[in-house]
Amino acid sequence: MMTHALAEAERAMDAGEVPVGAIVAVEGRIVGRGRNRVIELCDPTAHAEILAIREAARVWNGYRLDQATLYVTLEPCVMCVGAIVHARLASLKFGAWDEKAGAAGSVYDVGRDGRLNHRIEVYPQIMADRCTNLLREFFRARRGAA
Amino acid sequence: MMTHALAEAERAMDAGEVPVGAIVAVEGRIVGRGRNRVIELCDPTAHAEILAIREAARVWNGYRLDQATLYVTLEPCVMCVGAIVHARLASLKFGAWDEKAGAAGSVYDVGRDGRLNHRIEVYPQIMADRCTNLLREFFRARRGAA
Repeated sequence: MMTHALAEAERAMDAGEVPVGAIVAVEGRIVGRGRNRVIELCDPTAHAEILAIREAARVWNGYRLDQATLYVTLEPCVMCVGAIVHARLASLKFGAWDEKAGAAGSVYDVGRDGRLNHRIEVYPQIMADRCTNLLREFFRARRGAA
Repeated sequence: MMTHALAEAERAMDAGEVPVGAIVAVEGRIVGRGRNRVIELCDPTAHAEILAIREAARVWNGYRLDQATLYVTLEPCVMCVGAIVHARLASLKFGAWDEKAGAAGSVYDVGRDGRLNHRIEVYPQIMADRCTNLLREFFRARRGAA
């Protein structure tokens, strides 16, 4: 599943967006895909996870996805972990840590710290090297172009 | 502006949704409106604030809304304060406190605790009585119907 999320991240990179990709899966079946599209859609909420969750809720025809797992190449931010909690996702598997803005262990630990009414199982560092390398490559190219 | 947000909240209530409404305004001009539409849109991210921010970014034709204020009838959750930070909104004015899930002072204080790269000016309890009464009325009616 993380390979599919990485493919979404690569599509984001090709479009000039920060390369993050996400997949929502239920029992091995993909029900939502998303990639970072903030610039393309002119939408500050258009993170990979949000778009994948929105698609999954449409496909699943329910806004509670309590049997689903979200796979994402980068540790989700506060907004996205908040969305994961609202969608009642069972678990979160992510690639690279985001030490500056991550909300699944780095800066905040929303969804595990017991302050909200839903807890998520969190599995960090799934294919972390490939996820990190893609982000490094993107930022190196952007600095080179600047 | 909070009166307009309350009108949005009333529209949500008429549709059977938890009554929360939001307005994004720049220099006294409304650029985004939203009401809670989670059930209608089958979208766990369709909170009033998210929809108002998405509309404002479209209208403003930019995903950075750094001159804007968000007015919302209820203290925003983690997801919505995260979205406010991403959109770089200057300030947040809200009505009722949400002691169970609020992320602008109650459970979390995202956007003011200095952990992220953007700070928001927060003004709580704007027309708080009317905002609280609307929510009470909704939950009382729902309990009565159950």
